[in-house]
Amino acid sequence: MDSNTWGKIFRLTTFGESHGKAIGGILDGCPAGLEFDEAFVQKEMNRRRPGQSDITTTRNESDEVEFLSGLFEGKTLGTPLGFIIRNDDQRSGDYENLKHVYRPGHADAVWDRKFGFRDHRGGGRSSARETASRVVGGAIAKMLLKTYGIRIHAYVSKVKHVELKTPYQDIDFSLTEKSIVRCPDEAISDKMIAVIESARNSGDSVGGTIDCVISGVEAGLGDPVFDKLDAVLAHAMLSINATRGFEMFRGFESTGLMGSENNTITTGIAGGISDGHAIVFRTAFKPVSTIAQPQQAMTNSGEEITLEAKGRHDPCVLPRAVPIVEAMAALVMADMVLRMRSDRI
Amino acid sequence: MDSNTWGKIFRLTTFGESHGKAIGGILDGCPAGLEFDEAFVQKEMNRRRPGQSDITTTRNESDEVEFLSGLFEGKTLGTPLGFIIRNDDQRSGDYENLKHVYRPGHADAVWDRKFGFRDHRGGGRSSARETASRVVGGAIAKMLLKTYGIRIHAYVSKVKHVELKTPYQDIDFSLTEKSIVRCPDEAISDKMIAVIESARNSGDSVGGTIDCVISGVEAGLGDPVFDKLDAVLAHAMLSINATRGFEMFRGFESTGLMGSENNTITTGIAGGISDGHAIVFRTAFKPVSTIAQPQQAMTNSGEEITLEAKGRHDPCVLPRAVPIVEAMAALVMADMVLRMRSDRI
Amino acid sequence: MDSNTWGKIFRLTTFGESHGKAIGGILDGCPAGLEFDEAFVQKEMNRRRPGQSDITTTRNESDEVEFLSGLFEGKTLGTPLGFIIRNDDQRSGDYENLKHVYRPGHADAVWDRKFGFRDHRGGGRSSARETASRVVGGAIAKMLLKTYGIRIHAYVSKVKHVELKTPYQDIDFSLTEKSIVRCPDEAISDKMIAVIESARNSGDSVGGTIDCVISGVEAGLGDPVFDKLDAVLAHAMLSINATRGFEMFRGFESTGLMGSENNTITTGIAGGISDGHAIVFRTAFKPVSTIAQPQQAMTNSGEEITLEAKGRHDPCVLPRAVPIVEAMAALVMADMVLRMRSDRI
Amino acid sequence: MDSNTWGKIFRLTTFGESHGKAIGGILDGCPAGLEFDEAFVQKEMNRRRPGQSDITTTRNESDEVEFLSGLFEGKTLGTPLGFIIRNDDQRSGDYENLKHVYRPGHADAVWDRKFGFRDHRGGGRSSARETASRVVGGAIAKMLLKTYGIRIHAYVSKVKHVELKTPYQDIDFSLTEKSIVRCPDEAISDKMIAVIESARNSGDSVGGTIDCVISGVEAGLGDPVFDKLDAVLAHAMLSINATRGFEMFRGFESTGLMGSENNTITTGIAGGISDGHAIVFRTAFKPVSTIAQPQQAMTNSGEEITLEAKGRHDPCVLPRAVPIVEAMAALVMADMVLRMRSDRI
Repeated sequence: MDSNTWGKIFRLTTFGESHGKAIGGILDGCPAGLEFDEAFVQKEMNRRRPGQSDITTTRNESDEVEFLSGLFEGKTLGTPLGFIIRNDDQRSGDYENLKHVYRPGHADAVWDRKFGFRDHRGGGRSSARETASRVVGGAIAKMLLKTYGIRIHAYVSKVKHVELKTPYQDIDFSLTEKSIVRCPDEAISDKMIAVIESARNSGDSVGGTIDCVISGVEAGLGDPVFDKLDAVLAHAMLSINATRGFEMFRGFESTGLMGSENNTITTGIAGGISDGHAIVFRTAFKPVSTIAQPQQAMTNSGEEITLEAKGRHDPCVLPRAVPIVEAMAALVMADMVLRMRSDRI
Repeated sequence: MDSNTWGKIFRLTTFGESHGKAIGGILDGCPAGLEFDEAFVQKEMNRRRPGQSDITTTRNESDEVEFLSGLFEGKTLGTPLGFIIRNDDQRSGDYENLKHVYRPGHADAVWDRKFGFRDHRGGGRSSARETASRVVGGAIAKMLLKTYGIRIHAYVSKVKHVELKTPYQDIDFSLTEKSIVRCPDEAISDKMIAVIESARNSGDSVGGTIDCVISGVEAGLGDPVFDKLDAVLAHAMLSINATRGFEMFRGFESTGLMGSENNTITTGIAGGISDGHAIVFRTAFKPVSTIAQPQQAMTNSGEEITLEAKGRHDPCVLPRAVPIVEAMAALVMADMVLRMRSDRI
Repeated sequence: MDSNTWGKIFRLTTFGESHGKAIGGILDGCPAGLEFDEAFVQKEMNRRRPGQSDITTTRNESDEVEFLSGLFEGKTLGTPLGFIIRNDDQRSGDYENLKHVYRPGHADAVWDRKFGFRDHRGGGRSSARETASRVVGGAIAKMLLKTYGIRIHAYVSKVKHVELKTPYQDIDFSLTEKSIVRCPDEAISDKMIAVIESARNSGDSVGGTIDCVISGVEAGLGDPVFDKLDAVLAHAMLSINATRGFEMFRGFESTGLMGSENNTITTGIAGGISDGHAIVFRTAFKPVSTIAQPQQAMTNSGEEITLEAKGRHDPCVLPRAVPIVEAMAALVMADMVLRMRSDRI
Repeated sequence: MDSNTWGKIFRLTTFGESHGKAIGGILDGCPAGLEFDEAFVQKEMNRRRPGQSDITTTRNESDEVEFLSGLFEGKTLGTPLGFIIRNDDQRSGDYENLKHVYRPGHADAVWDRKFGFRDHRGGGRSSARETASRVVGGAIAKMLLKTYGIRIHAYVSKVKHVELKTPYQDIDFSLTEKSIVRCPDEAISDKMIAVIESARNSGDSVGGTIDCVISGVEAGLGDPVFDKLDAVLAHAMLSINATRGFEMFRGFESTGLMGSENNTITTGIAGGISDGHAIVFRTAFKPVSTIAQPQQAMTNSGEEITLEAKGRHDPCVLPRAVPIVEAMAALVMADMVLRMRSDRI
C-alpha cells in the first residue's frame, strides 16, 4: 500500500512497468510561479538514458518526457504536473523465456510471493526503468532548489576496488560529466572503465559507491525526531534499485574514532538538522544481478534450471545511477525547504 | 512539520523534552484483541534505562511507563494507547551554564537556527531520552510481531576496533543480555568493555556498530518503489541519535564483489521485499559527542569558550542503543505486516 | 500542498487542467489480482461525459481513458495504475476574452489570489473537467467493492423545487439511467427536465440535490475519531465542484425530532461506523455559476465590466454529477474496506 | 487505522476512553515562538466542561489540562506538545449493567462488530468526552490564528424548532457566552432553554444547529481539488459526535435559487478557496441518544430488553458543542494557514 509516493509537501507519485505502454508520474505540491525549464528536464533524462556510452546497456530508448499539466506560460501553476514517458523500445520477446523463471539476485520470486503474480517482462515494476520518473521529479526539484541556492553534485567514488580518494572539497564537479563513468578524475575514471569492461568481457558485473555533495544549504533543514535529514536521505537512497548501504560522510570509519576526534568533523548535518556546511553522503551499490554467465536459477514451480540471460544490460549501474542519486537527493531537499517554511511563527 | 510520527498504519507519535515534566507518546493503529504484556514493556524499558551497569551513565531514572488508554481487560481495544514516562531525576541545574553554549558535536546550534530558541536543558527534544518512547512503541510492536512468529535480535558487533566476526547464524542470542555491553560473545565483550572503560578514564568516548537480525519473516513484506523494506529500515535506523551509517548485511563490502559472487548472497530482502530468509543489517554509531575533556565551543553570541562538560553521560551509547535498534526495527516490521494485508484481493 | 490525492490505502492522485494536453491520474494501493473490466470504466465515463443528452452542455468530448500501467493479463498487478484522458475538443479561443475577467460565482479570482496567476482557459484546474479522473478511480473502486458485495446508487432527488419524495427503499435504481436527468421516477423526471429547460431558455441555471444509497455494507467500516465514515463521505462530497451541503439521511430534519423518535432511525452509520444497514446521504448542489445572461463582473485590474458568457455549459450539473457522487462514494468505501483489514489481530 | 490524527502540518493526535485513567493528545507541527496562554486553554475547556449550567449534565469534571512538553519560557518550542486530562469523576459502576447492552442510537454494537469487544464504560472511546482533547488542540490553533487576525465565533442557531434568524452580520458575538445555551439573542435563548428543560422533564432530548463564522481570513486558503476548504470543514464537523449534516451558509436553501440569484451570494469560499469574506457554515446535531425514558434495546447475545438509562446526561448537546465546533474549525484553519506557506515560490 501507499508506496509509490515520495514526500510530504513536494510529492512525487510514479507509475509504470518496464514493458508496459508508458511510465510516468505526478509531481504535486510544487509552488506556483517557478520558471520551468523543460530542456533541463530532458538533459537530466539523457544522463540516465540507456545507450549513452560504451559501458552502458545498448538498449536504446529516447526517454522523451511529455508534460501534460501544471504549466502555463512557462511557469508552474501550483497544480500537479502530470508527465509520461512512452516505452518505445520494448523487446518483450526477449523475456518470454523468463516468464516462469526467478532470476538470481532479482525480485522476481518475491513479487510473485507478495502479489500472487507479476509482469515478468524486464522486471515489470521492479525494473530500474521506474527511476526515469524520479529523474523527472528530481529535475523539477532542482529548479526549485536553485532559487534557494542549493546545488547537488553526485559522482562515482568507487568501482569495485578502484576508489577516488580526493576530498570532496578538492573536486571539480564540472569534470564529472566528461567521464563516461561519471568520476571527476580522469586517471581514476580510466581505471574504473577498465574494470567495468573487464567485467563485461567475462559476462560478469561490478558494483561500487556514489558520493553526493549538497552545497549552499542554510542551517535548519530536517525534521527530528523521525524525519532527521540524514534519515530521510538514507530512505531515499536505499529506495534506489541495487543499493545496499548508506553513510553520512565516512560514517562507518567514524566508528573507529574517539569522540574528541570525531567532534571536529561535520557531515553537514547535526542532530538531523542541516548545519550550514556542505552535506556529504555515500551510497553503496551492489554489482548488477543480471549477468551473461550461465547461472543456477529456480522456476516458479520449484524446478532448478540453468539460466543464460539474454536482453541488454549494464555491467555496472553506477554511471547511470549518478543522476538518480541526485534526483532523490533533490526530492528530499525540495520537500525539506518547503517543510521548513512552517518552523516558526 | 510532521516529524514526530512513525508509520502509516501502526503509528507511533512521541513527545517530550529531556528535562520537561514527562515524555511519552501515542501508539495508534494497533489492531484490537492483542494480549497486552505490560511487564514486558517495562522489561524492555529497563534494557534502555540509564544507570543499568558500570559502563553507562550514572543518571538514575526509573523510567516507569504509565499507560493511560487503549487497554481493557488485558487486551488492546483497537483505540490509541496513550502513555507517559515522568522525568523524575532532572538535575536541570547541571545545565544552567550551558544555556548559551553550543556543545561540539551536538545539535544545540542547529536547533537555535531552526526554531529561534530551544530548551537547553539536557539537549531538550534532541536528547536521546526521547528514544524511551520508541522503546515503548517497539515493545508493543514486538507483541504484535510475536503473533506472526517474527523475532528481532540486535547486538553490539563492534566497539571502536574490537569486532565480533562470528556469522549471525552461529550466534546464540540468549547471551546478549548476559553481557553489559550487549555483545553475545564473552571474550569479545570483555575486550569491548575494556575499550569503553579506557575511553571513560581518559574523559573520551567511543562508537561502534550494532547488528540486527530479524527472523521468522515470511516473504512479501515491504512496499516498492519508495517504501522498500530496506529503505524504511535505513530511515528508522538513521532516525536514532548518533547514527552515521546503515548497510544491509555487508553492503559496503559487497561493492567489491563480482555479480556472480554476490548473486549467491541474500540479505533477507530482494528488490525491497522480504524473501523469507533472515533479514540482517548493521547500523554505525559515532562516538558520543559529550566528553569530559575540555573542548573548544561557541556561544550563541559567537564567543569562543572552553567547555568542560558536567552532567552524567555514557562513554559509549551502544549497549543502551541495542533495545532502541530493536524497537525501531519492530516498529517498521509491525507497520509492514499490517500494510501487507492489503496486497491482494 | 498535498491536495490532489484521495485516500490512505486505496489512493487516487489526479492531474490536469481543463484545456491542457490531458487530464489523468494514478490509482495506487489497489490490491493485486482484481479482474479488470476496462469496458466498465468507459461506461462510467460515458455517464459523466458532456454532450450526452439534450439537457447537458453541447461540448463534445469522447473522454477515452488510456491505461498505461498496473494491469497484466486482465488483472491488477498491485502496482499503480496510471491513466490519461486527452483533451481533444479544446476551444481555448472561447476563453481568450476571459483572460483578465473574474467570472461571478467562479474560482477565478481566488486562484489568482492564491497562486499569483492561473490558466484561465475553461477554469483550468478548477474546472469540473477534473472530475473525469475521479470517475476512472471510482470505477476501479467499484470493481473492488463488488468483490465485497457493496453497491452504490446515486440519483437526482431534487431539481430546484421539484423533489422525489419516494423512500429510498421503494426506488428501482435500474430506472435512474433511463432518465436523462437521472431521476428514477418518470413523472418527476419529466418535471425536472422542464425546470432545467426553462432555466436554459432564460439564460439561467438551477441546482438541486443528489441522494446516494450504499448497500451491502457489513458492519464495522469507518475509523473514529476523525475518520468517521460519515465525516469522510462529507469530505468527499464537498470536494466535488458546486456542492454546498451534505447530510446523512435527513440530518437537518432530524434536528427537529425528539431523541425518542430519532433513536428508531438509522442512517446506516452509528458513531462513525457502518452498522450493516444501507448508508443513505444527500448532497446539495448550487445552481451552475456560468449563465448566459449578462452579469456584472470584475477584471483582475479591478475594473467593473458586463460579462456575456460564451462557451458551452450545462444549465444544471446534477445529471452529470450523479456518476461523480458515486465515484467519490466508491473511493471512500474502497479505502475503508482495506483499512478495516487492520482492525483486528 | 490512522484515525486519531487530524491535520497535515498542524497535527493533533488524541487518545483516551471516557472512563480510563486519562484522555489527552499530542499537538505536533505548531511553529516555534508562539506566545502560549495556558489560562486561555483552560478557559476554553471550561466552556466544554460538564456541569457548567442547569441545562447540562451534572457530571462534574474539573477537566484540568496538564501540559507535559513543547513549551519553554512561555513559548512553543516547535516540538510536540503532549498533554493529559485525568478522568477524575469516573462512576464506572453506573455502567456495569450496560456491559452487555447495546444502547439505542449509540455506537455500542458497531464497536463490538468492528473490534470484537469494547470498553463499555461511558461509551469508551466513542464517548464525546474525547472531544475535550480537541478543545485543547483548538485553543492552541486559536492562538496561532490570532497572529493571522483570524477569529472564530460559533453559536447555537436552532434548538428543535426555535431558530435564530438574525443574519450573522448583525450578531453581537460577545453575547454568546452570556447565554447558558450559547445563543447570542436573549429572547431566543430563553425559548431554547425552555425547550431543553421541557425535553429533560419528559425524559427526552432535543437537537438543533450550530452556526459558525470565521472572519479575518485572507483570500487563498484551501487546497483543491480534494482538500477544498469547505470539504475539510465538513469532514471536521461531521467528525464531531452526534452531527448529521453540514452546509456552507444556506447551502440546502441555495438549491432552490436560480444561478443569477445565487451568484450574488458568497459563503466565504469559492472553488474551495477562501475569498476574503467571512466564512459561514452550519452543522446539524441530532437529539442526544441517551434519554431517561425506558427504551427497547438489544444485548450482545441478541436478547431484547427494556433499558432504563442511569448515568448523568445532557438533554441537549448543543451548548457544550459550541466550543467543539470552534475547536475543529480552528484546527482546520491553523493547518491551512501553514499549508498556504507553500503555495508560491
